[in-house]
Amino acid sequence: MDKQIAETINRIGPLDAAAQESARQRQDTLTKPLGSLGRLEELSILIAGIKAQPLPKTGRQAVIVMAADHGVVAEGVSPYPQEVTAQMVQNFLRGGAGINVLARLAPARITVVDIGTRAPFPPDPQLVARKVAPGTANMARGPAMSLQQAEQAIKTGIDILETEWARGLDIVATGEMGIGNTTASSAICAVMTGEPAEKTTGRGTGLDDQGLARKVMVIKQAIAVNKPDKKDAMDVLAKVGGLEIGGLAGVILAAAARRVPVVIDGFISGAAALIAVGLSPAVRQYLIASHLSAEAGHKILLEHLGLKPLLELGMRLGEGTGAVLGMMLAEAATRTLAEMATFGEAGVSEASSK
Amino acid sequence: MDKQIAETINRIGPLDAAAQESARQRQDTLTKPLGSLGRLEELSILIAGIKAQPLPKTGRQAVIVMAADHGVVAEGVSPYPQEVTAQMVQNFLRGGAGINVLARLAPARITVVDIGTRAPFPPDPQLVARKVAPGTANMARGPAMSLQQAEQAIKTGIDILETEWARGLDIVATGEMGIGNTTASSAICAVMTGEPAEKTTGRGTGLDDQGLARKVMVIKQAIAVNKPDKKDAMDVLAKVGGLEIGGLAGVILAAAARRVPVVIDGFISGAAALIAVGLSPAVRQYLIASHLSAEAGHKILLEHLGLKPLLELGMRLGEGTGAVLGMMLAEAATRTLAEMATFGEAGVSEASSK
Repeated sequence: MDKQIAETINRIGPLDAAAQESARQRQDTLTKPLGSLGRLEELSILIAGIKAQPLPKTGRQAVIVMAADHGVVAEGVSPYPQEVTAQMVQNFLRGGAGINVLARLAPARITVVDIGTRAPFPPDPQLVARKVAPGTANMARGPAMSLQQAEQAIKTGIDILETEWARGLDIVATGEMGIGNTTASSAICAVMTGEPAEKTTGRGTGLDDQGLARKVMVIKQAIAVNKPDKKDAMDVLAKVGGLEIGGLAGVILAAAARRVPVVIDGFISGAAALIAVGLSPAVRQYLIASHLSAEAGHKILLEHLGLKPLLELGMRLGEGTGAVLGMMLAEAATRTLAEMATFGEAGVSEASSK
Repeated sequence: MDKQIAETINRIGPLDAAAQESARQRQDTLTKPLGSLGRLEELSILIAGIKAQPLPKTGRQAVIVMAADHGVVAEGVSPYPQEVTAQMVQNFLRGGAGINVLARLAPARITVVDIGTRAPFPPDPQLVARKVAPGTANMARGPAMSLQQAEQAIKTGIDILETEWARGLDIVATGEMGIGNTTASSAICAVMTGEPAEKTTGRGTGLDDQGLARKVMVIKQAIAVNKPDKKDAMDVLAKVGGLEIGGLAGVILAAAARRVPVVIDGFISGAAALIAVGLSPAVRQYLIASHLSAEAGHKILLEHLGLKPLLELGMRLGEGTGAVLGMMLAEAATRTLAEMATFGEAGVSEASSK
């Protein structure tokens, strides 16, 4: 394996049990009935373990949005034309997309990365231009990319996370844009979980029944043609993945190595998490599942990862929109842990046994 | 019925169908696959209908926290001593409670109302002193309050909402504090939904099995002794309710009359909603259920109201904590509706049928 990737994986350690225990004990002294903040308490304890801090902060938030194109759209797997990938990147840069609005609200900064769109972009100070290739090849006919391109995508993600880390980063969310990327994600999900493509494939941006049937067939064909090895996540990424999916897998690996909690968005980010966990199982503990997407297959994916989503709002937009809402809940979790008064501080009587 | 209450109820109209339709149409032009923001889209359309505005704003947020004591604690229904109600009010005023932390995050202003605590409070500019009575009577032995007190509690809630309205208010959340108030809420829930007390009663702040059995018995006794009439919500409130529950019912009625969306918190706020809807069924459309509480009975209560909670985080703290998180989602909903670019504005191609 590539040296940078191997070194990143080597830096990923276990959660800090002492910080977790300290956070757990503090939760039990705060002015509320024991456990009454439910999953916010669990989340605060998890983040303490991830960051190895008894009172972790999550104020400096970033969402990394990776954009790329997919050769498989030639098979007619999306109701949107391929140009929409680049058009939406422009929308991100001008602040008009869903992720822009929610990131302003959080607030979280956005980093938009061209890791593999087909279109040439004029230089833009807001766009991180790191094109590994102008889109993938059509995975229904052969591998989506070379092994070297897959590694390059992951290394790019590592670089991007490292740059965010250098800017000051407490928590990171994953987002993406790429017409055709639910097709790649469904293929990854089918391979990595062992479920049939019928179960891991959904309507994406809005296929009708006929379109859905075609998409399932294309995914089955891609798997049959390429024979990805589920024990080799890099092989799976190269053969049936996408450049933005590889990039996000790199972001996830590097975030875990830096002890930065990663809030994963929906189905495509979940596919990136499958790849990252396939490369390094220790990564799993650093993941926070923000929401359950309406896209079929996401439930299977999260169950396979052993993750329970925080939100279930029927969303399926991607871009990191669910993940940014998840970061708002993470902030609620760490702020209540840090800022609530204890029974002793507030002079509030504790419970007796009744 | 009291004139102020009747006049408030008379002002509650239907949702504005034109504003809803306008919001729905705009959602379908925004740069995202149709319906892909799921419940955020539904929520934005609902709020448009409530506020009679095609592009409603929810930036000016308030949470109203009503505190009161309950005579029924004499029956041993809570593991916490009654003094905790007043101690927690002090905690609210000093900013150390869960609701303070989450309200700062939202951000939402907090109004803390003493509508019926036992303790005399020294004057405090942060505390709205509107004590109807120093706690209710023990409902296991007779009515919790007189009909006049119940009406006074509701009128107080109306006054409080009107004051918030005068300060500038786009959306309001309900919160409460009152040792013993899950007992009153379970009794209200049993009466209004017709379900047995065993199903509407939970562990509150942390009862053990024996304590829970005693609580159920006390609730059954309160209902047997008082014979509340489910067709007369004011009667139910007076006989087995609480002053903070009446106050919040008043807040809900007045908010609906002002076309202000009301984000209801957990089980006790839900009991207040049952009373408000009992007094005026049109109120129901103005309610947003923020979360599903871990407290047994809340699910029954929400299903009876026909409301689907936005969040399910295993919370059961009350104070308005879940409701404030719900207001954050409401803000995400209205901001995406208002601020996202349309396909036309962004020059993004639309979907074809596939």
